[in-house]
Amino acid sequence: MKQEQKGITIKKEENMSEWYEQVCLKSELVEFSTVKGCMVIRPRGYSIWEKIKEHFEETINKPLGVKNAYFPLFVPESFFHKEAEHAKGFSPEVAWIDKELTGEGERLAIRPTSETIMYDSYSRWIRSYRDLPLKINQWCNVVRWETKATRLFLRSREFLWQEGHNVYETEKECEEETIEIIKRYAALCENLLAMPVLVGKKSEKEKFAGAKHTYTIEAFMPDGKALQCGTSHNLGTGFGKSFGISYLGKDEKKHTPFQNSWGLSTRLIGGLVMTHSDDAGLVLPPKVTENKIAIIPLLFKNKKEKVLEEANKLKKELKKFNPILDDSEDYSPGYKFSEHELKGTPIRIEIGPRDLEKDEVIVVRRDTKEKQSIKIKNLKKEIPRILDLMQKEMFEKAKEKMNSAIVEVKSKEDFNKAIKNKKLVKINWCGETTCEENIKEKTGATTRCILLKEKKAQGNCIYCGKKAKEIMYFSKSY
Amino acid sequence: MKQEQKGITIKKEENMSEWYEQVCLKSELVEFSTVKGCMVIRPRGYSIWEKIKEHFEETINKPLGVKNAYFPLFVPESFFHKEAEHAKGFSPEVAWIDKELTGEGERLAIRPTSETIMYDSYSRWIRSYRDLPLKINQWCNVVRWETKATRLFLRSREFLWQEGHNVYETEKECEEETIEIIKRYAALCENLLAMPVLVGKKSEKEKFAGAKHTYTIEAFMPDGKALQCGTSHNLGTGFGKSFGISYLGKDEKKHTPFQNSWGLSTRLIGGLVMTHSDDAGLVLPPKVTENKIAIIPLLFKNKKEKVLEEANKLKKELKKFNPILDDSEDYSPGYKFSEHELKGTPIRIEIGPRDLEKDEVIVVRRDTKEKQSIKIKNLKKEIPRILDLMQKEMFEKAKEKMNSAIVEVKSKEDFNKAIKNKKLVKINWCGETTCEENIKEKTGATTRCILLKEKKAQGNCIYCGKKAKEIMYFSKSY
Repeated sequence: MKQEQKGITIKKEENMSEWYEQVCLKSELVEFSTVKGCMVIRPRGYSIWEKIKEHFEETINKPLGVKNAYFPLFVPESFFHKEAEHAKGFSPEVAWIDKELTGEGERLAIRPTSETIMYDSYSRWIRSYRDLPLKINQWCNVVRWETKATRLFLRSREFLWQEGHNVYETEKECEEETIEIIKRYAALCENLLAMPVLVGKKSEKEKFAGAKHTYTIEAFMPDGKALQCGTSHNLGTGFGKSFGISYLGKDEKKHTPFQNSWGLSTRLIGGLVMTHSDDAGLVLPPKVTENKIAIIPLLFKNKKEKVLEEANKLKKELKKFNPILDDSEDYSPGYKFSEHELKGTPIRIEIGPRDLEKDEVIVVRRDTKEKQSIKIKNLKKEIPRILDLMQKEMFEKAKEKMNSAIVEVKSKEDFNKAIKNKKLVKINWCGETTCEENIKEKTGATTRCILLKEKKAQGNCIYCGKKAKEIMYFSKSY
Repeated sequence: MKQEQKGITIKKEENMSEWYEQVCLKSELVEFSTVKGCMVIRPRGYSIWEKIKEHFEETINKPLGVKNAYFPLFVPESFFHKEAEHAKGFSPEVAWIDKELTGEGERLAIRPTSETIMYDSYSRWIRSYRDLPLKINQWCNVVRWETKATRLFLRSREFLWQEGHNVYETEKECEEETIEIIKRYAALCENLLAMPVLVGKKSEKEKFAGAKHTYTIEAFMPDGKALQCGTSHNLGTGFGKSFGISYLGKDEKKHTPFQNSWGLSTRLIGGLVMTHSDDAGLVLPPKVTENKIAIIPLLFKNKKEKVLEEANKLKKELKKFNPILDDSEDYSPGYKFSEHELKGTPIRIEIGPRDLEKDEVIVVRRDTKEKQSIKIKNLKKEIPRILDLMQKEMFEKAKEKMNSAIVEVKSKEDFNKAIKNKKLVKINWCGETTCEENIKEKTGATTRCILLKEKKAQGNCIYCGKKAKEIMYFSKSY
């Protein structure tokens, strides 16, 4: 069993894919289920998802007035086909329950996303302008029958996500909030996960099936591939028309409202792991960890009692950081150090008899492995300072890394070279799908996004030579 | 559309089933989905589920050290059949994904419960006594392909629940915590939902498929039917043996650990609605409501300004109760009163110009409809007192009602009569499945439970005349 072998045996730089899998498994975030294509999110991984949920509720749902609800797992095939583009986009990866089994005269899809099943309800709920805006979110599982190899958190047949589905009277409100949400997604990545992202608009080719346009947050992984971490789609009135959603306006006339949908998933945890972790294992920003401290007493014969007493006192005093006191005598301190490095505990406190003589302990940061002696009486003040600093520096380091990967190129040759060198490449681009497909075929790179606040494109597309319409980021991607 | 007609048009006493459906739909807790057998839990209903979750985390998961995780939706058919009794118990209601569709060589069940898929993982995770106890819970959707008529919250093809799955070294620990959990379920029903329950053990016939024995909480509905609200199963070592779960004990020998599983579901919301609601609509205990107050200003010409000003001030002052200020001029106060009665807002505050002259407002409790004038300056102190009293009295009223339904009978004739009279009937009983089946066939009543703290049975079974072994409660049930 892979997950039983202690310690990461492959370097991040050597083989990131294999390293990543080892970190995920050995830190006990997740495992491959015996069910093909599926993962088990273990308690250590799930608690990260719970932190993301909490942060999301506080910074997105509450301030924007979004309410949670729950819609059926099953979507009748006929619903699916009401919006033609949408059906086309999702068909290849839908898992169906056969109509013979359902006895319903048609197949039922296991939701790959819930636009259609939700908007069927919306068509009954929305009558008047007084019912708008309607803002509903659900936290649920979705299923996409992937045929490519399973990658923990990144690609699996079932994953967890939230999907928000809002309805507005005006196009302006709709577009503004679609953008507001992608900005808040970016803030969640940066403030909670210490993971920098580009925030921008997807190309026509890469937009959501059935959307007018799609906004995205894109993180950039240390192996030179982008990871799409969340999307917010302006759906215009397309679904509204297909599902017969309409409202009586203040003008006493019937109108089709404007809609958006927006989601982020457990994939974020994958991005988090890749961004920060190292050859010793998981590194997590303190804000997403449940147990922020591991207290490890150094137990020498005849000097145990005092050390254990102090360790227990510390555990109580630092209670709000949910410290783990690792006082078993079955394992050596060195073994425990490695264990907590592997599992990503942000701070390690070592207490030994000699430190105690000086009323000190040794405090070690997981990310930098920096050691410092701190007076016991100062710990309560110092720990939050160190955690804040760690959170901040982890973000800065990741941000610097992303920035250093960005290059702007002016020619096709430089573009090809930059993609080969695993860069995040910024170009003046024509915006055409044929050019995009050509680039993908030749280089393997795909469009990431046009930044929200981007300058106008100048001159010609550096790849095909047609007139440039936008400044687009390209890279390989997950 | 049923849910568009305002106000409940049927009395609870006349036709509880139709009344219940109207209350659920018109208070906008839930609706029937177009997908047969499924429901949509609307924001007002889902927020009750969120309150249940919060309370659960605080009073069960945290104190018992249970961690949340997430396991796959799909269960291979072969897993399902590893524990023979379990497979037999669930087979009729499992929804399968055909093996042609999965391409996996076997059918996949959509989880009706997760023992098998979880214990497959447990068999890899548990190695040593140091890994025990293992306590894991998941909040998820489950699917049981019901063929009977759908009843909102009570019987649907998909519902939400939590399922806890713990593993212990000793039989004693396992049994004790199985009971501890059912007691905590009862406390949740009583303290949060103001819903009294019987707490006891299920008969052999009614126990969970694959369990050694099952504990249950049983609420008693106003129409004389019991509602099973949560169960906690002592699984013994049966699943452990079937799934090859074993650990190396302190004695350095291999052992099969002891397991339990325990769950409660969105069905609880159905029990809550039936227990407390009335002919005007939903009545909810304050602790499960998000908006505990509706402030309704009485707007007369020339006197609006002062009333609205005061209403807004009150809204701010009472912020911690999330008041709704219903100040639209499109609807009359009477319409608004009915609306908030229908939706179960616990307290209504009416502010009119005449009350204001006396620095008073009128406060109306939803459950009793009792009106009182309260000085504005006293509101901040009085509101929490009223909410607490309401919570307490709602429980007491429901408890009295349940107690008054309990009768102890000494003969078969009295038993039959009591069941016909919709009682919760307590008898000295033989404990035999044949007798239980006979009672069900003759009277429609089923065993509910043997109370945790029950006296010894005396004499003979009042139904079949064999020696009585236990004191069992019988009634009709949902």
